Amino acid sequence: MTVLGLGPMGTTLAKAFLTAGHRTTVWNRTPGRAGNLAVRGAAEVALAAEAVDASPLVVVCLATYEAVHEVLVPIADQLVGRTVVNLTSGSPVHARETAAWVERQGADYLDGVIMTVPSGIGNQDFLLLYAGSQAAFDGSRGILVALGHPVYLGADAALASVYDTALLSLMWGTLTGWLHGVALIGADGPGGNVTATTYTTVADRWMKTVRAFMRSYAPQVDSGQYPGGEFTLELHQKTMDILAHASELRGVASGLPELVKELTGRAIAAGHGNDSYARLVEFIRRDGG
Amino acid sequence: MTVLGLGPMGTTLAKAFLTAGHRTTVWNRTPGRAGNLAVRGAAEVALAAEAVDASPLVVVCLATYEAVHEVLVPIADQLVGRTVVNLTSGSPVHARETAAWVERQGADYLDGVIMTVPSGIGNQDFLLLYAGSQAAFDGSRGILVALGHPVYLGADAALASVYDTALLSLMWGTLTGWLHGVALIGADGPGGNVTATTYTTVADRWMKTVRAFMRSYAPQVDSGQYPGGEFTLELHQKTMDILAHASELRGVASGLPELVKELTGRAIAAGHGNDSYARLVEFIRRDGG
Ligand SMILES: NC(=O)c1ccc[n+]([C@@H]2O[C@H](COP(=O)([O-])OP(=O)(O)OC[C@H]3O[C@@H](n4cnc5c(N)ncnc54)[C@H](OP(=O)(O)O)[C@@H]3O)[C@@H](O)[C@H]2O)c1
Ligand SMILES: NC(=O)c1ccc[n+]([C@@H]2O[C@H](COP(=O)([O-])OP(=O)(O)OC[C@H]3O[C@@H](n4cnc5c(N)ncnc54)[C@H](OP(=O)(O)O)[C@@H]3O)[C@@H](O)[C@H]2O)c1
Repeated sequence: MTVLGLGPMGTTLAKAFLTAGHRTTVWNRTPGRAGNLAVRGAAEVALAAEAVDASPLVVVCLATYEAVHEVLVPIADQLVGRTVVNLTSGSPVHARETAAWVERQGADYLDGVIMTVPSGIGNQDFLLLYAGSQAAFDGSRGILVALGHPVYLGADAALASVYDTALLSLMWGTLTGWLHGVALIGADGPGGNVTATTYTTVADRWMKTVRAFMRSYAPQVDSGQYPGGEFTLELHQKTMDILAHASELRGVASGLPELVKELTGRAIAAGHGNDSYARLVEFIRRDGG
Repeated sequence: MTVLGLGPMGTTLAKAFLTAGHRTTVWNRTPGRAGNLAVRGAAEVALAAEAVDASPLVVVCLATYEAVHEVLVPIADQLVGRTVVNLTSGSPVHARETAAWVERQGADYLDGVIMTVPSGIGNQDFLLLYAGSQAAFDGSRGILVALGHPVYLGADAALASVYDTALLSLMWGTLTGWLHGVALIGADGPGGNVTATTYTTVADRWMKTVRAFMRSYAPQVDSGQYPGGEFTLELHQKTMDILAHASELRGVASGLPELVKELTGRAIAAGHGNDSYARLVEFIRRDGG
């Protein structure tokens, strides 16, 4: 294992590899950042070329894709036959360009996204997303698992970055909905003293139901058929009106209720009142409806 | 067990009690709605008074609280010493008024909310929320479990309805975030053919992380201290810009990214850039900030 880049994240990745018992070579542009990695058994080398030479698997974790190119281009010849796993954050376009360039040097490429912060590294509850060469993933999965739960997304290197954005939108939607509920139920309300912690115990259990909806609605999106069954958009709309009213009464911001009511209202106006919530995907795709 | 009201939900509740082996008496305003409940062993009676007399535990599931009062007021004398569990949907005010009235008749009262549709009844993955008399809950929990996972929220009967609204806002936030991701990643995008089903497998796993955020942020809300640690609002804002840009590029509606960017921007402008996402609760409470 070689790790290029010893920022907060790169250092933590190297630590996780060492903890898992892998021989690890590290390099950083500014020397002397290996700190106690050396104590743990890492070999710090002065040149990126030397670091790459040390291992068939090279993990890159730098500030930007520009930095990745600055580091790799001068040592392109050393890459042949190796696997480059790039965990630097960037756009889908960056990922595709870098994949093409690395493959032209005769190396395999995986583009990765780390769906956690340094303190989450090594915990299998957290995901690392990988896209690019399936062979590279299959060959290095056993090592990459040291960082967290590895998920392979497909051959297009852009996928990791695209999933990242999609999953973050799911996180923001969820956390915003959760905070809206926390605000609604807060200390000045009924029960007198419902803490966020008490509420969240119930909310966490409720997420089981919400996830069951997601899983059952996904095939509806894929088929373009959205039977509402017992839980139609008309029923959603009725309870959204209750939410909007309660939010108003309790001095809670109307952003989220308005967003969901507006989408639902448009779908119902277009004749989809008996469909499920999944129908709204067609109104989120801007051209749809 | 007595069940008053044999609409789609009341009928299903009675069925679940019978399946669990409880002697069940049923009544409905319009007679002849018991259908195959009788075959399963239910006793259908013609008068609500008779139904109430048959059991110490009376479950009420009617269209509205007005209907509940129409049914119970004439038989108020029969209620003394019994437990009334009202699973009719209504507002917090309805719940409190009905609790006070039932208690004046010398009965215990629980206000309940069924967090599923009839087909989910009897499945422990789904929640039923109860609020009101703790003694009534403790005494009837063993029977109510036949309907789904029972959660007791506290003595104020309004709590079930308030939690309902809060949990629904969490559901809509989550499902809207999920659909936004589904739209972003859809078939015309990178990878060519990422189906909603494929994406949702990863999204479902990712929810573990999101739920961990909720659980760790709840005590922050309770203490009013929101240390951002490694995942600050500044960092959220950077990635929100990426989401907004990607949504724009892919023709995906900007509602959700704009909502979360606006909240985050306001919190950062107020000097909270190093805080966690949980700080936003103060900007969702309309007077906060
Ligand atoms: N930290 C997190 O929570 C987190 C989470 C997920 C993903 N990531 C991603 O992981 C990557 C690394 O993040 P980080 O937190 O470790 O710190 P960072 O500040 O993003 O990156 C610091 C690293 O980049 C190197 N670097 C910057 N410009 C360079 C250049 N032109 N040539 C060579 N090296 C250069 C730095 O070397 P010097 O020491 O010489 O400056 C240092 O090793 C980023 O893309 C980040 O987005 C981080
Ligand atoms: N179905 C669901 O998915 C669901 C989910 C969660 C909660 N709930 C709640 O459960 C309750 C019952 O719902 P439901 O689906 O069974 O059907 P519903 O259509 O909401 O209610 C039908 C029942 O109410 C009775 N009723 C209406 N007005 C009455 C009155 N003035 N006096 C006496 N009885 C009256 C009807 O009797 P008749 O037959 O004589 O008209 C029938 O038994 C509602 O509050 C609903 O919001 C339902």
